[in-house]
Amino acid sequence: MKKKKLNFKRSPNTLRLVRLGIDTYQEPVVYMKQDCHVCRSEGFSAQSRVLIETSKRSIIATLNVIHDGMLKAGEAGLSEAAWRLLKVRENQLASFSHPKPLDSLSYVRRKAYGHSLSDQAFQEVIHDIVKGRYADVHLAAFITACSGDSLNPREKVSLTQAMVNAGERLEWPDELVMDKHCVGGLPGNRTTPIIVPIIAAFGLKMPKTSSRAITSPAGTADTMAVLTQVSLSLKKIHQVIAREGACMAYGGAMKLSPADDTLIRVERVLDLDSQGQLVASVLSKKIAAGATHVIIDLPMGPTAKVRSLKAAQALSHDLKYVAKHLGLKIKVILTDGRQPVGYGIGPALEARDVLAVLQGKPEAPQDLRERSLDLAGELLELSGKLKKGQGRKTAAALLDNGEAWKKFQAICRAQGGLFEPPIAKYQHSIAANCSGKVIEIDNRLLARVAKLAGAPADMAAGLQLHKKLGDFIQKDESLFTVHAESQGELEYALDYVKSHDDIFQIRRRK
Amino acid sequence: MKKKKLNFKRSPNTLRLVRLGIDTYQEPVVYMKQDCHVCRSEGFSAQSRVLIETSKRSIIATLNVIHDGMLKAGEAGLSEAAWRLLKVRENQLASFSHPKPLDSLSYVRRKAYGHSLSDQAFQEVIHDIVKGRYADVHLAAFITACSGDSLNPREKVSLTQAMVNAGERLEWPDELVMDKHCVGGLPGNRTTPIIVPIIAAFGLKMPKTSSRAITSPAGTADTMAVLTQVSLSLKKIHQVIAREGACMAYGGAMKLSPADDTLIRVERVLDLDSQGQLVASVLSKKIAAGATHVIIDLPMGPTAKVRSLKAAQALSHDLKYVAKHLGLKIKVILTDGRQPVGYGIGPALEARDVLAVLQGKPEAPQDLRERSLDLAGELLELSGKLKKGQGRKTAAALLDNGEAWKKFQAICRAQGGLFEPPIAKYQHSIAANCSGKVIEIDNRLLARVAKLAGAPADMAAGLQLHKKLGDFIQKDESLFTVHAESQGELEYALDYVKSHDDIFQIRRRK
Repeated sequence: MKKKKLNFKRSPNTLRLVRLGIDTYQEPVVYMKQDCHVCRSEGFSAQSRVLIETSKRSIIATLNVIHDGMLKAGEAGLSEAAWRLLKVRENQLASFSHPKPLDSLSYVRRKAYGHSLSDQAFQEVIHDIVKGRYADVHLAAFITACSGDSLNPREKVSLTQAMVNAGERLEWPDELVMDKHCVGGLPGNRTTPIIVPIIAAFGLKMPKTSSRAITSPAGTADTMAVLTQVSLSLKKIHQVIAREGACMAYGGAMKLSPADDTLIRVERVLDLDSQGQLVASVLSKKIAAGATHVIIDLPMGPTAKVRSLKAAQALSHDLKYVAKHLGLKIKVILTDGRQPVGYGIGPALEARDVLAVLQGKPEAPQDLRERSLDLAGELLELSGKLKKGQGRKTAAALLDNGEAWKKFQAICRAQGGLFEPPIAKYQHSIAANCSGKVIEIDNRLLARVAKLAGAPADMAAGLQLHKKLGDFIQKDESLFTVHAESQGELEYALDYVKSHDDIFQIRRRK
Repeated sequence: MKKKKLNFKRSPNTLRLVRLGIDTYQEPVVYMKQDCHVCRSEGFSAQSRVLIETSKRSIIATLNVIHDGMLKAGEAGLSEAAWRLLKVRENQLASFSHPKPLDSLSYVRRKAYGHSLSDQAFQEVIHDIVKGRYADVHLAAFITACSGDSLNPREKVSLTQAMVNAGERLEWPDELVMDKHCVGGLPGNRTTPIIVPIIAAFGLKMPKTSSRAITSPAGTADTMAVLTQVSLSLKKIHQVIAREGACMAYGGAMKLSPADDTLIRVERVLDLDSQGQLVASVLSKKIAAGATHVIIDLPMGPTAKVRSLKAAQALSHDLKYVAKHLGLKIKVILTDGRQPVGYGIGPALEARDVLAVLQGKPEAPQDLRERSLDLAGELLELSGKLKKGQGRKTAAALLDNGEAWKKFQAICRAQGGLFEPPIAKYQHSIAANCSGKVIEIDNRLLARVAKLAGAPADMAAGLQLHKKLGDFIQKDESLFTVHAESQGELEYALDYVKSHDDIFQIRRRK
């Protein structure tokens, strides 16, 4: 591709670039001195959008003005994101000017004014987002304009397709490529490491890539990282799958649907729900990962992401509509999201639950086992290889006869070995303050306790539940145990527990 | 007001504050080391919202993570906005934690989902915005949710009232307090310094506060700063008005409608129009300034802010509706916005036009004179002190008999003296490249040339027009002259002119 030749003969808008080591997440930021001649001649001020060009590439960054001695005359500083995107070396020269208005922002405005957008419009918006050309405020405007249920079904298809097109796409030689996804997460809902070996033991391909935790105490990739290597190259993933038919790898480095990563971050700050974005987020990653058949776990409950049957049905309808139009076979399963799944919350504690189920231990959490079998059964039937009613039975057989456990060990060995989950140094048990029956558990507060205790950064940190919904408990009996790797984090989590007496609701015995 | 006592006994979340001198405009940013124990225990990452508390006050800031040696262990850096809001001293201790979700953001979400908001909702949103509690992405979401014509008439009233309530409010003992406003600006449209002395010479109060340029080559306050002192204390303003009945001061330091200042900045980056925000922006400042009767100049033209009669009428209707509900008497005048007003663009060059009109010089720009008289006449009639049809006549008499010029000099003397406008060191004339009739002038491109030449920071910089719409010109005759204070800026402006041959459209003579 031929690049426009830059004219460096006139010096007024040229500066030397220095890396300041400031992480502004994905928004590229440029730092310029208050009295910088370029700021002056271009009329830049704090928050101006600035076009930075080298002979090789160009980026648009947001300006922060420096009053201090951080920069020398003739220098401009770059944030980590800007440094990454511009791919420069220390002290390289670049020219600074006003960027042309981004054409695709006119589509964001159209959407904000309530109009619907074409396929092409979504392509251009998502393309510019992935290229880092949107400031955070532009991303916020796009998300707000698409929030609620403001995208029509056709627009949801367009957005999903645009997000697939903007990233890498994995390809598999197989006709059937199985996958699963859980919408919104639920603490301890670690069914993937049980479903994958069942599906692979049955003989179907399941190249599973998972994410690390974003806001939760553990993602599937965090839990699997306790047990084996998960940061695999694409080549290694292909090797593992060629050998075992499945993998359980970390997908974050693969740039499947990179627009989604950028949008999710701003969505989280805004706490805005967008049915269209959610559908596009889920399905674009599955399509980009090369899946053909996907089961979607949709937990419902007062402290889950999806809180009502009506909301779950609307989401389920949209997921099916978009999947159908993009050639993906899916089944959406509404599941119980009223409480955490299993006993452990946090990477190692969840890994223990997974191992107990796979090994058929008597103390294994039955809810985790049952959910995993339900979902694996549905996926087997969705593949068309089993008749309706045969899936769950077959899944249970593969788990109970040890085939799934054997396959799990084989996959881990292929990925780099099977490790023993660590045990936390500090543990503290939390007792009930009355006797009665557990009638409510707050998923969000429990997740927060586990995170304060150090999860997921500390693998062994988190908590272990001793009581679940419907269980009876005596005053002073243990509800759960907090696990931490440092005394400070333990106390931090315990402080939080002390100030929140609504984590468990206990109906007193009459 | 009693403040919650902070518990500093546990150190995990306490850091020393340092001022980094980074201007992020209004968004408070906190800089923390990547390996900081607080980041770790609180689970903060880049872009996290962080609650920073001292014993006296608290703010919410956005986190940027530092990979570099900019901070020492145990330190956190603050941006200028954060430093200003938290009012701390170097090395003061503060505690860091997760902020509670802002209740008012639920209203932003409601609006984004298409619902209408109550009075109370707008009060809370605007209150939190003024307190600096919204990140830029929250501001962007609010602006997007209110964009286009998504606010109903009642909501426009509520938003305006909320913006008045959130700032300072000037009070005057007079029954009639005159004011004027121009929507969207037009280069050279400097009617205020002519209208104010006419109104004051007539005997009405006009405590006029104006803004400096935000994106234009000169605001009224920039032009008046060429001629007299404009940065006056409130006490001084009262003195000037007691003596002369009017002032022409800079209003920026008075915090009239501070929410507007914050919102306008993000609106500009998004380039999103919002009828509701525009109405609230204009009227909240007038109400906060204590005006009772206001004339609004609404220039219309292809390169003005308002581009069609339909848009002008809709805006005019909304302005009148909201003003009526808030007890403000206004009249909206649709004016010609197809070209700049007067000959000069830039503070000193516009000041010369103003002086020429006030002094009745033969070379005075007639369009500036006529507009000023039209608007002054309407304002005199709006006051009720003159019958319909008498306003313009009276205004013209006060200008032609020298009363307005006398009053102008008296006001300037009261404000601190009348100064001579400076003349730029470097001037360069731009010639027409063909003969014909001037049929179009691009306001935006001309404004850009004046800014590149150094306006408004360099008072004398800008440009002087020699031809206007309808004028005939010969090839190589001068269209306009660029004025600059440095050779570099002159060349910068000339480069821009060379690459834009569409500033003037000339229809060739047949």
